[in-house]
Amino acid sequence: MTTRRTFFKRAGLGLAAAAGAPALMTAKAQQTQAGGDSFKLAIAGYTFHKFNLDQTLEMLKKVDVHYLCIKDFHLPIKSTAEEIAAFHEKCASFGVTGYGVGPIYMSSEEAVNNAFAYAKRVGVKVLVGVPFKFVGKKRVASADLLKLIDAKVREYGIKYAIHNHGPDMPELFPNAESGIEMIKGMDKRVGLCLDIGHQFRDGGRCPVKAMTDYADRIHDLHIKNVTAPDKSGRGIEMPRGKIDMTAFVRAVRKTGYAGACSLEYEKDMNDPLLGIAESIGYFRGIMDATR
Amino acid sequence: MTTRRTFFKRAGLGLAAAAGAPALMTAKAQQTQAGGDSFKLAIAGYTFHKFNLDQTLEMLKKVDVHYLCIKDFHLPIKSTAEEIAAFHEKCASFGVTGYGVGPIYMSSEEAVNNAFAYAKRVGVKVLVGVPFKFVGKKRVASADLLKLIDAKVREYGIKYAIHNHGPDMPELFPNAESGIEMIKGMDKRVGLCLDIGHQFRDGGRCPVKAMTDYADRIHDLHIKNVTAPDKSGRGIEMPRGKIDMTAFVRAVRKTGYAGACSLEYEKDMNDPLLGIAESIGYFRGIMDATR
Repeated sequence: MTTRRTFFKRAGLGLAAAAGAPALMTAKAQQTQAGGDSFKLAIAGYTFHKFNLDQTLEMLKKVDVHYLCIKDFHLPIKSTAEEIAAFHEKCASFGVTGYGVGPIYMSSEEAVNNAFAYAKRVGVKVLVGVPFKFVGKKRVASADLLKLIDAKVREYGIKYAIHNHGPDMPELFPNAESGIEMIKGMDKRVGLCLDIGHQFRDGGRCPVKAMTDYADRIHDLHIKNVTAPDKSGRGIEMPRGKIDMTAFVRAVRKTGYAGACSLEYEKDMNDPLLGIAESIGYFRGIMDATR
Repeated sequence: MTTRRTFFKRAGLGLAAAAGAPALMTAKAQQTQAGGDSFKLAIAGYTFHKFNLDQTLEMLKKVDVHYLCIKDFHLPIKSTAEEIAAFHEKCASFGVTGYGVGPIYMSSEEAVNNAFAYAKRVGVKVLVGVPFKFVGKKRVASADLLKLIDAKVREYGIKYAIHNHGPDMPELFPNAESGIEMIKGMDKRVGLCLDIGHQFRDGGRCPVKAMTDYADRIHDLHIKNVTAPDKSGRGIEMPRGKIDMTAFVRAVRKTGYAGACSLEYEKDMNDPLLGIAESIGYFRGIMDATR
Protein backbone atom coordinates (compact mmCIF):
# COMPACT_ATOMS: atom_id res chain seq x y z
CA MET A 1 0.00 0.00 0.00
CA THR A 2 1.40 3.35 -0.97
CA THR A 3 1.89 5.65 1.97
CA ARG A 4 0.99 9.06 0.68
CA ARG A 5 1.39 12.28 2.57
CA THR A 6 0.05 15.63 1.66
CA PHE A 7 2.66 18.31 1.74
CA PHE A 8 3.36 21.66 0.27
CA LYS A 9 5.66 21.11 -2.59
CA ARG A 10 8.48 23.49 -3.27
CA ALA A 11 8.76 24.32 -6.93
CA GLY A 12 12.13 22.63 -7.32
CA LEU A 13 12.32 23.26 -11.04
CA GLY A 14 11.42 26.90 -10.91
CA LEU A 15 7.71 26.70 -11.59
CA ALA A 16 6.27 29.78 -9.98
CA ALA A 17 2.66 29.07 -10.88
CA ALA A 18 2.33 25.92 -8.81
CA ALA A 19 4.44 26.98 -5.84
CA GLY A 20 2.60 26.35 -2.63
CA ALA A 21 0.04 24.10 -4.32
CA PRO A 22 -0.78 21.00 -2.28
CA ALA A 23 0.52 17.85 -3.92
CA LEU A 24 0.58 14.12 -3.36
CA MET A 25 3.90 12.36 -3.38
CA THR A 26 5.02 9.06 -1.90
CA ALA A 27 7.51 9.06 0.90
CA LYS A 28 10.01 7.53 -1.51
CA ALA A 29 9.55 10.26 -4.09
CA GLN A 30 9.97 12.88 -1.40
CA GLN A 31 13.09 11.16 -0.15
CA THR A 32 14.50 11.08 -3.66
CA GLN A 33 13.67 14.72 -4.12
CA ALA A 34 15.26 15.63 -0.81
CA GLY A 35 18.00 13.05 -0.75
CA GLY A 36 20.89 14.26 -2.77
CA ASP A 37 19.80 13.98 -6.37
CA SER A 38 20.48 17.20 -8.23
CA PHE A 39 18.12 16.08 -11.00
CA LYS A 40 14.46 15.07 -11.17
CA LEU A 41 12.85 12.01 -12.72
CA ALA A 42 10.12 13.07 -15.14
CA ILE A 43 8.22 11.95 -18.20
CA ALA A 44 8.17 13.76 -21.54
CA GLY A 45 4.64 14.64 -22.63
CA TYR A 46 5.12 13.12 -26.08
CA THR A 47 5.02 9.69 -24.40
CA PHE A 48 1.30 10.32 -23.90
CA HIS A 49 0.41 11.74 -27.28
CA LYS A 50 -2.47 9.30 -27.64
CA PHE A 51 -3.94 10.27 -24.27
CA ASN A 52 -5.63 13.30 -22.78
CA LEU A 53 -4.35 15.09 -19.71
CA ASP A 54 -6.49 13.14 -17.23
CA GLN A 55 -5.31 9.82 -18.62
CA THR A 56 -1.73 11.10 -18.61
CA LEU A 57 -1.90 12.18 -14.97
CA GLU A 58 -3.48 8.86 -13.96
CA MET A 59 -0.53 7.07 -15.56
CA LEU A 60 2.01 9.36 -13.90
CA LYS A 61 0.35 8.62 -10.57
CA LYS A 62 0.51 4.88 -11.13
CA VAL A 63 4.27 5.00 -11.65
CA ASP A 64 4.85 7.58 -8.89
CA VAL A 65 6.35 10.21 -11.19
CA HIS A 66 5.80 13.85 -10.34
CA TYR A 67 7.24 15.92 -13.17
CA LEU A 68 5.96 16.31 -16.71
CA CYS A 69 7.34 18.16 -19.72
CA ILE A 70 4.21 19.71 -21.18
CA LYS A 71 3.34 19.02 -24.82
CA ASP A 72 1.06 21.43 -26.63
CA PHE A 73 -1.58 18.75 -27.23
CA HIS A 74 -2.14 18.84 -23.46
CA LEU A 75 -1.86 22.62 -23.16
CA PRO A 76 -2.16 24.47 -26.48
CA ILE A 77 0.16 27.39 -27.18
CA LYS A 78 -2.81 29.72 -27.42
CA SER A 79 -4.10 28.81 -23.94
CA THR A 80 -5.45 31.67 -21.86
CA ALA A 81 -4.26 32.48 -18.36
CA GLU A 82 -7.40 30.77 -17.02
CA GLU A 83 -6.74 27.63 -19.05
CA ILE A 84 -3.13 27.56 -17.86
CA ALA A 85 -4.22 27.98 -14.23
CA ALA A 86 -6.72 25.14 -14.62
CA PHE A 87 -4.01 22.96 -16.16
CA HIS A 88 -1.67 23.54 -13.23
CA GLU A 89 -4.45 22.96 -10.76
CA LYS A 90 -5.29 19.62 -12.30
CA CYS A 91 -1.63 18.59 -12.37
CA ALA A 92 -1.22 19.62 -8.73
CA SER A 93 -4.20 17.47 -7.74
CA PHE A 94 -2.13 14.49 -8.97
CA GLY A 95 1.04 15.73 -7.31
CA VAL A 96 2.52 16.61 -10.70
CA THR A 97 4.48 19.69 -11.71
CA GLY A 98 4.75 20.69 -15.36
CA TYR A 99 8.41 21.67 -15.34
CA GLY A 100 8.94 22.64 -18.96
CA VAL A 101 7.24 22.88 -22.36
CA GLY A 102 7.96 21.22 -25.66
CA PRO A 103 9.34 20.04 -27.90
CA ILE A 104 7.84 22.85 -29.98
CA TYR A 105 8.74 23.00 -33.65
CA MET A 106 9.15 26.64 -34.77
CA SER A 107 9.84 27.91 -38.27
CA SER A 108 9.33 31.69 -38.02
CA GLU A 109 10.19 34.63 -35.79
CA GLU A 110 6.56 34.79 -34.81
CA ALA A 111 6.60 31.15 -33.74
CA VAL A 112 9.71 31.77 -31.62
CA ASN A 113 8.10 34.84 -30.04
CA ASN A 114 4.92 32.91 -29.34
CA ALA A 115 6.79 29.98 -27.83
CA PHE A 116 8.72 32.15 -25.38
CA ALA A 117 5.59 34.07 -24.43
CA TYR A 118 3.81 30.75 -23.88
CA ALA A 119 6.63 29.37 -21.73
CA LYS A 120 6.50 32.54 -19.64
CA ARG A 121 2.72 32.38 -19.23
CA VAL A 122 2.95 28.70 -18.28
CA GLY A 123 5.60 29.67 -15.73
CA VAL A 124 8.34 27.26 -16.71
CA LYS A 125 12.07 27.87 -16.99
CA VAL A 126 12.85 25.53 -19.87
CA LEU A 127 11.53 25.55 -23.41
CA VAL A 128 12.37 22.55 -25.58
CA GLY A 129 12.32 23.42 -29.24
CA VAL A 130 13.35 22.79 -32.79
CA PRO A 131 14.07 26.01 -34.77
CA PHE A 132 13.92 25.34 -38.49
CA LYS A 133 13.30 26.75 -41.93
CA PHE A 134 11.92 25.10 -45.01
CA VAL A 135 14.31 24.47 -47.89
CA GLY A 136 11.86 23.27 -50.48
CA LYS A 137 9.85 20.73 -48.56
CA LYS A 138 12.76 19.83 -46.31
CA ARG A 139 13.04 21.05 -42.72
CA VAL A 140 16.53 22.40 -42.02
CA ALA A 141 18.04 23.83 -38.83
CA SER A 142 17.75 27.62 -38.78
CA ALA A 143 20.74 29.75 -37.74
CA ASP A 144 18.66 32.92 -38.05
CA LEU A 145 16.06 31.74 -35.57
CA LEU A 146 18.82 30.68 -33.18
CA LYS A 147 20.09 34.27 -33.22
CA LEU A 148 16.64 35.43 -32.19
CA ILE A 149 16.47 32.68 -29.56
CA ASP A 150 19.81 33.88 -28.16
CA ALA A 151 18.21 37.29 -27.58
CA LYS A 152 15.03 35.74 -26.18
CA VAL A 153 16.74 33.67 -23.47
CA ARG A 154 18.29 36.91 -22.18
CA GLU A 155 14.99 38.77 -22.36
CA TYR A 156 12.93 36.05 -20.63
CA GLY A 157 15.47 34.28 -18.42
CA ILE A 158 14.15 31.02 -19.87
CA LYS A 159 16.46 28.25 -21.07
CA TYR A 160 16.05 26.99 -24.62
CA ALA A 161 16.81 23.32 -25.23
CA ILE A 162 17.26 22.12 -28.83
CA HIS A 163 15.94 18.61 -29.27
CA ASN A 164 18.11 16.29 -31.40
CA HIS A 165 16.23 13.78 -33.48
CA GLY A 166 18.72 11.30 -34.88
CA PRO A 167 19.44 10.08 -38.39
CA ASP A 168 15.80 10.35 -39.49
CA MET A 169 16.26 14.12 -39.78
CA PRO A 170 19.89 14.59 -40.86
CA GLU A 171 19.55 18.32 -41.47
CA LEU A 172 17.46 19.08 -38.38
CA PHE A 173 19.76 18.57 -35.38
CA PRO A 174 20.41 14.85 -35.81
CA ASN A 175 22.77 14.87 -32.82
CA ALA A 176 24.08 17.01 -29.99
CA GLU A 177 27.14 18.02 -31.95
CA SER A 178 25.09 19.60 -34.75
CA GLY A 179 23.27 21.73 -32.18
CA ILE A 180 26.41 22.72 -30.28
CA GLU A 181 28.12 23.76 -33.52
CA MET A 182 25.34 26.25 -34.25
CA ILE A 183 25.08 27.81 -30.77
CA LYS A 184 28.70 28.21 -29.71
CA GLY A 185 29.33 31.77 -28.58
CA MET A 186 25.69 32.22 -27.65
CA ASP A 187 24.30 32.69 -24.14
CA LYS A 188 24.70 29.45 -22.19
CA ARG A 189 20.96 29.36 -21.73
CA VAL A 190 20.73 28.36 -25.37
CA GLY A 191 21.48 24.66 -25.20
CA LEU A 192 20.22 21.15 -25.69
CA CYS A 193 17.52 18.74 -24.74
CA LEU A 194 19.80 15.75 -25.23
CA ASP A 195 17.76 12.82 -26.50
CA ILE A 196 20.06 9.94 -25.68
CA GLY A 197 18.18 7.47 -27.86
CA HIS A 198 18.46 9.59 -30.99
CA GLN A 199 22.07 10.45 -30.14
CA PHE A 200 22.89 6.75 -29.99
CA ARG A 201 20.88 5.97 -33.13
CA ASP A 202 22.99 8.52 -35.00
CA GLY A 203 25.90 6.21 -35.71
CA GLY A 204 26.33 4.95 -32.17
CA ARG A 205 27.30 8.31 -30.68
CA CYS A 206 27.92 7.93 -26.96
CA PRO A 207 25.34 9.60 -24.69
CA VAL A 208 27.87 9.63 -21.84
CA LYS A 209 30.33 11.61 -23.94
CA ALA A 210 27.64 14.10 -25.02
CA MET A 211 26.44 14.52 -21.43
CA THR A 212 29.99 15.12 -20.25
CA ASP A 213 31.22 17.30 -23.11
CA TYR A 214 28.20 19.58 -23.27
CA ALA A 215 27.13 19.61 -19.62
CA ASP A 216 26.94 23.39 -19.39
CA ARG A 217 24.56 23.47 -22.36
CA ILE A 218 22.27 20.60 -21.40
CA HIS A 219 18.99 21.99 -20.10
CA ASP A 220 16.72 18.96 -20.53
CA LEU A 221 17.19 15.23 -21.11
CA HIS A 222 15.07 12.68 -22.92
CA ILE A 223 15.97 9.34 -21.40
CA LYS A 224 15.11 6.13 -23.20
CA ASN A 225 16.69 3.03 -24.57
CA VAL A 226 16.86 1.72 -28.13
CA THR A 227 17.53 -1.57 -29.88
CA ALA A 228 20.46 -0.56 -32.11
CA PRO A 229 23.11 2.16 -32.56
CA ASP A 230 21.80 3.15 -35.98
CA LYS A 231 18.73 4.23 -37.88
CA SER A 232 17.16 0.81 -37.39
CA GLY A 233 17.12 1.35 -33.62
CA ARG A 234 13.67 1.45 -32.06
CA GLY A 235 12.46 2.40 -28.61
CA ILE A 236 12.31 -0.45 -26.10
CA GLU A 237 11.78 -1.02 -22.39
CA MET A 238 14.76 0.62 -20.74
CA PRO A 239 16.44 -2.49 -19.30
CA ARG A 240 16.39 -4.24 -22.66
CA GLY A 241 18.17 -1.80 -24.95
CA LYS A 242 21.75 -1.21 -26.00
CA ILE A 243 22.54 2.04 -24.19
CA ASP A 244 24.54 1.59 -20.97
CA MET A 245 22.13 3.44 -18.69
CA THR A 246 24.30 2.98 -15.60
CA ALA A 247 27.20 4.78 -17.23
CA PHE A 248 24.80 7.48 -18.33
CA VAL A 249 23.34 8.05 -14.86
CA ARG A 250 26.84 8.20 -13.41
CA ALA A 251 27.70 10.89 -15.97
CA VAL A 252 24.55 12.84 -15.13
CA ARG A 253 25.53 12.76 -11.44
CA LYS A 254 29.12 13.72 -12.18
CA THR A 255 28.10 16.85 -14.08
CA GLY A 256 25.78 17.97 -11.27
CA TYR A 257 22.98 18.31 -13.81
CA ALA A 258 20.06 20.05 -12.11
CA GLY A 259 17.29 19.59 -14.66
CA ALA A 260 14.92 16.75 -15.42
CA CYS A 261 15.58 13.25 -16.72
CA SER A 262 12.42 12.84 -18.76
CA LEU A 263 11.49 9.38 -19.95
CA GLU A 264 10.30 9.56 -23.55
CA TYR A 265 8.83 6.14 -24.16
CA GLU A 266 7.99 5.47 -27.78
CA LYS A 267 7.10 1.78 -27.85
CA ASP A 268 3.50 0.51 -27.64
CA MET A 269 2.23 4.09 -27.74
CA ASN A 270 -1.38 2.92 -27.71
CA ASP A 271 -0.78 1.10 -24.43
CA PRO A 272 2.53 2.32 -23.01
CA LEU A 273 1.96 2.04 -19.26
CA LEU A 274 3.56 -1.36 -18.69
CA GLY A 275 6.75 -0.39 -20.52
CA ILE A 276 6.79 2.94 -18.73
CA ALA A 277 6.58 1.14 -15.36
CA GLU A 278 9.46 -1.20 -16.24
CA SER A 279 11.52 1.73 -17.55
CA ILE A 280 10.85 4.04 -14.61
CA GLY A 281 11.58 1.19 -12.20
CA TYR A 282 14.84 0.50 -14.00
CA PHE A 283 15.99 4.11 -13.97
CA ARG A 284 15.06 4.42 -10.28
CA GLY A 285 17.07 1.27 -9.55
CA ILE A 286 20.12 2.77 -11.20
CA MET A 287 19.54 6.09 -9.44
CA ASP A 288 19.37 4.35 -6.06
CA ALA A 289 22.39 2.16 -6.77
CA THR A 290 24.58 5.05 -7.90
CA ARG A 291 23.66 7.60 -5.25
CA MET B 1 10.53 -3.69 -30.47
CA THR B 2 11.92 -6.63 -28.58
CA THR B 3 14.66 -8.44 -30.44
CA ARG B 4 14.11 -12.08 -29.62
CA ARG B 5 16.33 -14.91 -30.65
CA THR B 6 15.67 -18.57 -30.44
CA PHE B 7 18.39 -20.48 -28.74
CA PHE B 8 18.96 -23.63 -26.83
CA LYS B 9 18.90 -22.75 -23.21
CA ARG B 10 21.26 -24.40 -20.80
CA ALA B 11 19.49 -25.45 -17.63
CA GLY B 12 21.43 -23.02 -15.47
CA LEU B 13 19.52 -23.91 -12.32
CA GLY B 14 19.85 -27.64 -12.62
CA LEU B 15 16.55 -28.47 -14.25
CA ALA B 16 17.21 -31.66 -16.13
CA ALA B 17 13.75 -32.00 -17.60
CA ALA B 18 13.90 -28.86 -19.72
CA ALA B 19 17.55 -29.05 -20.75
CA GLY B 20 17.93 -28.60 -24.48
CA ALA B 21 14.39 -27.29 -24.86
CA PRO B 22 14.17 -24.36 -27.26
CA ALA B 23 13.34 -21.14 -25.46
CA LEU B 24 12.76 -17.49 -26.20
CA MET B 25 14.83 -14.92 -24.39
CA THR B 26 15.74 -11.35 -25.21
CA ALA B 27 19.30 -10.49 -26.00
CA LYS B 28 19.41 -8.59 -22.71
CA ALA B 29 18.24 -11.55 -20.68
CA GLN B 30 20.80 -13.75 -22.38
CA GLN B 31 23.51 -11.21 -21.67
CA THR B 32 22.48 -11.08 -18.03
CA GLN B 33 22.50 -14.83 -17.83
CA ALA B 34 25.90 -15.02 -19.48
CA GLY B 35 27.38 -11.83 -18.13
CA GLY B 36 28.71 -12.42 -14.70
CA ASP B 37 25.67 -12.77 -12.48
CA SER B 38 25.91 -15.87 -10.34
CA PHE B 39 22.19 -15.63 -9.58
CA LYS B 40 19.02 -15.59 -11.69
CA LEU B 41 16.11 -13.18 -11.65
CA ALA B 42 12.85 -15.09 -11.23
CA ILE B 43 9.30 -14.74 -9.98
CA ALA B 44 7.75 -16.78 -7.18
CA GLY B 45 4.62 -18.60 -8.31
CA TYR B 46 2.58 -17.31 -5.38
CA THR B 47 2.61 -13.89 -7.08
CA PHE B 48 0.21 -15.38 -9.62
CA HIS B 49 -2.10 -17.28 -7.31
CA LYS B 50 -5.14 -15.65 -8.92
CA PHE B 51 -4.04 -16.70 -12.41
CA ASN B 52 -3.70 -19.91 -14.35
CA LEU B 53 -0.44 -21.06 -15.92
CA ASP B 54 -1.12 -19.51 -19.32
CA GLN B 55 -1.87 -16.13 -17.80
CA THR B 56 1.19 -16.48 -15.59
CA LEU B 57 3.49 -17.24 -18.51
CA GLU B 58 2.04 -14.35 -20.54
CA MET B 59 2.92 -12.03 -17.66
CA LEU B 60 6.42 -13.46 -17.31
CA LYS B 61 6.93 -12.89 -21.02
CA LYS B 62 5.76 -9.29 -20.80
CA VAL B 63 8.37 -8.50 -18.16
CA ASP B 64 11.10 -10.59 -19.82
CA VAL B 65 11.57 -12.95 -16.86
CA HIS B 66 12.56 -16.52 -17.57
CA TYR B 67 12.52 -18.39 -14.26
CA LEU B 68 9.55 -19.39 -12.14
CA CYS B 69 9.29 -21.07 -8.76
CA ILE B 70 6.41 -23.48 -9.30
CA LYS B 71 3.43 -23.33 -6.95
CA ASP B 72 1.21 -26.37 -6.63
CA PHE B 73 -1.83 -24.51 -7.94
CA HIS B 74 -0.02 -24.42 -11.29
CA LEU B 75 1.33 -27.97 -11.04
CA PRO B 76 -0.41 -30.12 -8.40
CA ILE B 77 1.70 -32.39 -6.21
CA LYS B 78 -0.16 -35.42 -7.57
CA SER B 79 0.70 -34.58 -11.19
CA THR B 80 1.59 -37.50 -13.42
CA ALA B 81 4.78 -37.70 -15.48
CA GLU B 82 2.74 -36.71 -18.54
CA GLU B 83 1.26 -33.68 -16.80
CA ILE B 84 4.70 -32.60 -15.62
CA ALA B 85 6.11 -32.98 -19.14
CA ALA B 86 3.25 -30.91 -20.54
CA PHE B 87 3.88 -28.26 -17.89
CA HIS B 88 7.56 -27.99 -18.81
CA GLU B 89 6.73 -27.93 -22.49
CA LYS B 90 4.33 -25.04 -22.04
CA CYS B 91 6.86 -23.14 -19.91
CA ALA B 92 9.58 -23.72 -22.50
CA SER B 93 7.33 -22.31 -25.23
CA PHE B 94 7.44 -19.02 -23.28
CA GLY B 95 11.17 -19.28 -22.65
CA VAL B 96 10.52 -20.03 -18.98
CA THR B 97 12.22 -22.60 -16.74
CA GLY B 98 10.51 -23.79 -13.57
CA TYR B 99 13.59 -23.82 -11.35
CA GLY B 100 12.09 -24.94 -8.04
CA VAL B 101 8.85 -25.88 -6.30
CA GLY B 102 7.03 -24.36 -3.36
CA PRO B 103 6.49 -23.06 -0.85
CA ILE B 104 4.81 -26.32 0.18
CA TYR B 105 3.36 -26.55 3.68
CA MET B 106 3.93 -30.04 5.10
CA SER B 107 2.72 -31.37 8.45
CA SER B 108 3.43 -35.12 8.27
CA GLU B 109 6.12 -37.57 7.24
CA GLU B 110 3.96 -38.56 4.32
CA ALA B 111 3.71 -34.95 3.19
CA VAL B 112 7.49 -34.59 3.37
CA ASN B 113 7.98 -37.81 1.41
CA ASN B 114 5.46 -36.70 -1.20
CA ALA B 115 7.05 -33.27 -1.55
CA PHE B 116 10.54 -34.69 -2.21
CA ALA B 117 9.16 -37.27 -4.65
CA TYR B 118 7.27 -34.45 -6.43
CA ALA B 119 10.38 -32.24 -6.61
CA LYS B 120 12.30 -35.15 -8.10
CA ARG B 121 9.60 -35.90 -10.66
CA VAL B 122 9.42 -32.22 -11.60
CA GLY B 123 13.18 -32.28 -12.02
CA VAL B 124 14.12 -29.34 -9.82
CA LYS B 125 16.96 -29.02 -7.38
CA VAL B 126 15.29 -26.83 -4.78
CA LEU B 127 12.18 -27.46 -2.71
CA VAL B 128 10.80 -24.54 -0.72
CA GLY B 129 8.82 -25.69 2.28
CA VAL B 130 7.35 -25.12 5.69
CA PRO B 131 7.55 -28.19 7.96
CA PHE B 132 5.08 -27.89 10.82
CA LYS B 133 2.93 -29.68 13.33
CA PHE B 134 -0.37 -28.68 14.86
CA VAL B 135 -0.37 -27.74 18.53
CA GLY B 136 -4.08 -27.40 19.07
CA LYS B 137 -5.13 -25.29 16.12
CA LYS B 138 -1.80 -23.51 15.97
CA ARG B 139 0.83 -24.35 13.35
CA VAL B 140 4.26 -24.69 14.96
CA ALA B 141 7.67 -25.43 13.40
CA SER B 142 8.42 -29.17 13.51
CA ALA B 143 11.86 -30.37 14.61
CA ASP B 144 10.87 -33.98 13.90
CA LEU B 145 10.04 -33.29 10.27
CA LEU B 146 13.30 -31.38 9.90
CA LYS B 147 15.16 -34.52 10.97
CA LEU B 148 13.40 -36.42 8.21
CA ILE B 149 14.14 -33.61 5.77
CA ASP B 150 17.83 -33.80 6.70
CA ALA B 151 17.80 -37.43 5.59
CA LYS B 152 15.78 -36.63 2.48
CA VAL B 153 18.20 -33.99 1.12
CA ARG B 154 20.95 -36.61 1.28
CA GLU B 155 18.78 -39.24 -0.36
CA TYR B 156 17.53 -37.00 -3.19
CA GLY B 157 20.35 -34.47 -3.64
CA ILE B 158 17.66 -31.78 -3.53
CA LYS B 159 18.03 -28.62 -1.44
CA TYR B 160 15.31 -27.81 1.07
CA ALA B 161 14.61 -24.13 1.71
CA ILE B 162 12.53 -23.16 4.75
CA HIS B 163 10.38 -20.14 4.03
CA ASN B 164 10.22 -17.54 6.81
CA HIS B 165 6.92 -15.77 7.17
CA GLY B 166 7.38 -12.87 9.56
CA PRO B 167 5.55 -11.79 12.70
CA ASP B 168 2.18 -13.06 11.44
CA MET B 169 3.30 -16.60 12.30
CA PRO B 170 5.58 -16.21 15.32
CA GLU B 171 5.90 -19.97 15.93
CA LEU B 172 6.29 -20.97 12.31
CA PHE B 173 9.70 -19.66 11.17
CA PRO B 174 9.01 -15.94 11.61
CA ASN B 175 12.59 -15.11 10.59
CA ALA B 176 15.80 -16.61 9.26
CA GLU B 177 17.25 -16.98 12.74
CA SER B 178 14.43 -19.25 13.90
CA GLY B 179 15.07 -21.55 10.97
CA ILE B 180 18.85 -21.56 11.36
CA GLU B 181 18.51 -22.38 15.06
CA MET B 182 16.58 -25.55 14.21
CA ILE B 183 18.82 -26.83 11.40
CA LYS B 184 22.33 -26.22 12.70
CA GLY B 185 24.37 -29.39 12.46
CA MET B 186 22.24 -30.69 9.61
CA ASP B 187 23.35 -31.18 6.02
CA LYS B 188 24.00 -27.80 4.40
CA ARG B 189 21.36 -28.61 1.83
CA VAL B 190 18.80 -28.01 4.54
CA GLY B 191 18.55 -24.24 4.54
CA LEU B 192 16.40 -21.21 3.89
CA CYS B 193 14.29 -19.49 1.33
CA LEU B 194 15.01 -16.09 2.81
CA ASP B 195 11.94 -13.88 2.38
CA ILE B 196 13.48 -10.45 2.84
CA GLY B 197 10.13 -8.73 3.27
CA HIS B 198 9.03 -10.95 6.14
CA GLN B 199 12.53 -10.80 7.64
CA PHE B 200 12.32 -7.01 7.69
CA ARG B 201 8.73 -7.05 8.97
CA ASP B 202 9.88 -9.11 11.94
CA GLY B 203 11.13 -6.20 14.03
CA GLY B 204 13.22 -4.60 11.32
CA ARG B 205 15.68 -7.47 10.97
CA CYS B 206 18.27 -6.63 8.33
CA PRO B 207 18.04 -8.70 5.12
CA VAL B 208 21.66 -7.86 4.32
CA LYS B 209 22.82 -9.33 7.62
CA ALA B 210 20.74 -12.50 7.12
CA MET B 211 22.04 -12.89 3.56
CA THR B 212 25.61 -12.49 4.75
CA ASP B 213 25.42 -14.51 7.95
CA TYR B 214 23.57 -17.50 6.50
CA ALA B 215 24.91 -17.48 2.93
CA ASP B 216 25.85 -21.16 2.96
CA ARG B 217 22.29 -22.07 3.96
CA ILE B 218 20.38 -19.81 1.60
CA HIS B 219 18.97 -21.87 -1.27
CA ASP B 220 16.21 -19.56 -2.51
CA LEU B 221 15.30 -15.89 -2.08
CA HIS B 222 11.96 -14.12 -2.09
CA ILE B 223 12.71 -10.55 -3.06
CA LYS B 224 10.17 -7.82 -2.40
CA ASN B 225 9.80 -4.54 -0.62
CA VAL B 226 7.49 -3.53 2.22
CA THR B 227 6.17 -0.35 3.74
CA ALA B 228 7.35 -0.76 7.34
CA PRO B 229 9.82 -2.75 9.49
CA ASP B 230 7.06 -4.32 11.57
CA LYS B 231 3.84 -6.29 11.38
CA SER B 232 2.06 -3.33 9.78
CA GLY B 233 4.38 -3.56 6.76
CA ARG B 234 2.67 -4.40 3.49
CA GLY B 235 4.01 -5.34 0.07
CA ILE B 236 4.66 -2.43 -2.27
CA GLU B 237 6.27 -1.69 -5.62
CA MET B 238 9.96 -2.40 -5.03
CA PRO B 239 11.32 1.15 -5.49
CA ARG B 240 8.86 2.55 -2.96
CA GLY B 241 9.49 0.45 0.14
CA LYS B 242 11.77 0.70 3.14
CA ILE B 243 14.27 -2.08 2.42
CA ASP B 244 17.58 -0.88 0.99
CA MET B 245 17.55 -3.08 -2.10
CA THR B 246 20.90 -1.83 -3.35
CA ALA B 247 22.64 -2.97 -0.19
CA PHE B 248 20.83 -6.27 -0.48
CA VAL B 249 21.89 -6.90 -4.08
CA ARG B 250 25.47 -6.03 -3.19
CA ALA B 251 25.30 -8.63 -0.39
CA VAL B 252 23.87 -11.24 -2.77
CA ARG B 253 26.77 -10.60 -5.14
CA LYS B 254 29.35 -10.69 -2.36
CA THR B 255 28.23 -14.11 -1.17
CA GLY B 256 28.39 -15.55 -4.69
CA TYR B 257 24.82 -16.79 -4.28
CA ALA B 258 24.01 -19.05 -7.23
CA GLY B 259 20.27 -19.52 -6.85
CA ALA B 260 17.29 -17.44 -7.88
CA CYS B 261 16.15 -14.03 -6.72
CA SER B 262 12.41 -14.59 -6.99
CA LEU B 263 10.13 -11.58 -6.87
CA GLU B 264 7.15 -12.36 -4.66
CA TYR B 265 4.80 -9.49 -5.32
CA GLU B 266 1.84 -9.36 -2.97
CA LYS B 267 0.19 -6.04 -3.75
CA ASP B 268 -2.77 -5.70 -6.14
CA MET B 269 -2.90 -9.48 -6.51
CA ASN B 270 -5.96 -9.26 -8.75
CA ASP B 271 -4.03 -7.08 -11.18
CA PRO B 272 -0.34 -7.30 -10.28
CA LEU B 273 1.36 -6.86 -13.65
CA LEU B 274 2.07 -3.13 -13.44
CA GLY B 275 3.68 -3.41 -10.02
CA ILE B 276 5.61 -6.47 -11.17
CA ALA B 277 6.99 -4.50 -14.13
CA GLU B 278 8.08 -1.59 -11.94
CA SER B 279 9.63 -4.01 -9.42
CA ILE B 280 11.43 -6.16 -11.99
CA GLY B 281 12.68 -3.02 -13.73
CA TYR B 282 13.96 -1.68 -10.43
CA PHE B 283 15.78 -4.87 -9.47
CA ARG B 284 17.32 -5.09 -12.95
CA GLY B 285 18.49 -1.48 -12.62
CA ILE B 286 20.25 -2.30 -9.38
CA MET B 287 21.67 -5.51 -10.85
CA ASP B 288 23.09 -3.59 -13.81
CA ALA B 289 24.44 -0.77 -11.66
CA THR B 290 26.19 -3.11 -9.20
CA ARG B 291 27.68 -5.58 -11.67
